[in-house]
Amino acid sequence: MGEIKQTFSHSKDLRLACRSGEFTGQTSAAIKGFTQANLVILPEDWANDFLLFAQRNPKPCPLLAVTNPGEFTPKTLAENSDLRTDLPRYRIWKQGELIAEPTEISDHWQDDFVSFLIGCSFTFESAMLRAGIPVRHIELGVNVPMYLTNLQCEPAGRFRGPQVVSMRPMTPSQAIHAVQITSRFPSVHGAPIHLGLPAQIGIVDLGTPDFGDPVPMKENEIPVFWACGVTPQAVIQKSKPPLVVTHSPGSMFVTDLKDDELTVG
Amino acid sequence: MGEIKQTFSHSKDLRLACRSGEFTGQTSAAIKGFTQANLVILPEDWANDFLLFAQRNPKPCPLLAVTNPGEFTPKTLAENSDLRTDLPRYRIWKQGELIAEPTEISDHWQDDFVSFLIGCSFTFESAMLRAGIPVRHIELGVNVPMYLTNLQCEPAGRFRGPQVVSMRPMTPSQAIHAVQITSRFPSVHGAPIHLGLPAQIGIVDLGTPDFGDPVPMKENEIPVFWACGVTPQAVIQKSKPPLVVTHSPGSMFVTDLKDDELTVG
Repeated sequence: MGEIKQTFSHSKDLRLACRSGEFTGQTSAAIKGFTQANLVILPEDWANDFLLFAQRNPKPCPLLAVTNPGEFTPKTLAENSDLRTDLPRYRIWKQGELIAEPTEISDHWQDDFVSFLIGCSFTFESAMLRAGIPVRHIELGVNVPMYLTNLQCEPAGRFRGPQVVSMRPMTPSQAIHAVQITSRFPSVHGAPIHLGLPAQIGIVDLGTPDFGDPVPMKENEIPVFWACGVTPQAVIQKSKPPLVVTHSPGSMFVTDLKDDELTVG
Repeated sequence: MGEIKQTFSHSKDLRLACRSGEFTGQTSAAIKGFTQANLVILPEDWANDFLLFAQRNPKPCPLLAVTNPGEFTPKTLAENSDLRTDLPRYRIWKQGELIAEPTEISDHWQDDFVSFLIGCSFTFESAMLRAGIPVRHIELGVNVPMYLTNLQCEPAGRFRGPQVVSMRPMTPSQAIHAVQITSRFPSVHGAPIHLGLPAQIGIVDLGTPDFGDPVPMKENEIPVFWACGVTPQAVIQKSKPPLVVTHSPGSMFVTDLKDDELTVG
């Protein structure tokens, strides 16, 4: 993400730049304050299983919106948006295999496609930064480190698989403050699910994340783990639906919601 | 505390049993649901310094009430109570030295005595237990382990000294939940101030607490530390006021407030 120079002041402008093919980069640093979402698109046949899966796994899969079949505008998140074109980059999966990473999916669209918009940790990161908690991967301009765990998601229908977590190193007192802050964002993964003892959730080497980039940890810091919106991609690889479309990691759907609208308490 | 058999159903009954000399034990297990408080009594000359000290150190010294000079009934906490007789056991300190542990202080009372009632972690422990978080020292029937730290209180007037913390071992996910629960109790120490890395706050051996009793820690647990109402006693030893009266550790002033009245959020 270090190479991103382009900055948008409104989500609409960023979506239009994606639609025209002008912007194909990572969204995290390209715009501030607007809620970004993970995307999972499934044919209707598989969509009900996934809806149940998300309901049973709200920490990794907090649903911000679910469209009707064939609908490509999640109106409650962004009027006049188009999920076929408004993300910088997509991933197309067949039988659990990644087969393409196009910048739009108009040619792949089906009338039975149901789209799931899932909360993303970028939302609480801005709240942490405002509270003076450093976020290492943002400081370094890299993607957050993510790890497969030995925690299994609650299965639903044909979906099953491991939970993926994102990790942010911080001091113990920052970790306590981060629990308080992120508890106020239940719709974007909420509070951490683990901290301090990575081996306990099956992570043997923090230096080699399964997704994203490694970040250094200081001697006075502990690793803090949040449920991660990349979990559905790990579950797709395991559950092998015939066809799935997702966002490409870091290339999110940028909504018109403001991050601060998602707080509670 | 394992020897306590007597149980009171209302705080008034427990206070009257202290007043008559019938009850001289530890209060924690003797009654449930009523807010218990730490007590610090100082002559007026030193009271203003301590008031400022508490204001600057709200985590270890959350004030539930402060009396007028000579007043021995903290009316907002307990009508008709008498701070001279209604605690099971007191400590009398001269020049920072503990000189006596009487069961009442009527003979020591002075017209210029100002009493400080300070929140106690017993309040949030019941909320943790109700939430399914085990509290080791309660399971074992011993006093909570407490440690002097290398964290200094913010000085005020003639008062200065180290922060004392209480420690509860728990799994990482229980620790996260405990942060959420205790954040809702700001008037009884609130969220933990540290976790996971005891050496960072100057604790070299968890097995030898400076106050209270040691408790075993399981392999899958981390130590979680809260600011502790015993801090004033450590500060008294350091700051050496001519005369101070406190409760004896574990023998608290039991108020008519219910623990659940102290929650926020």
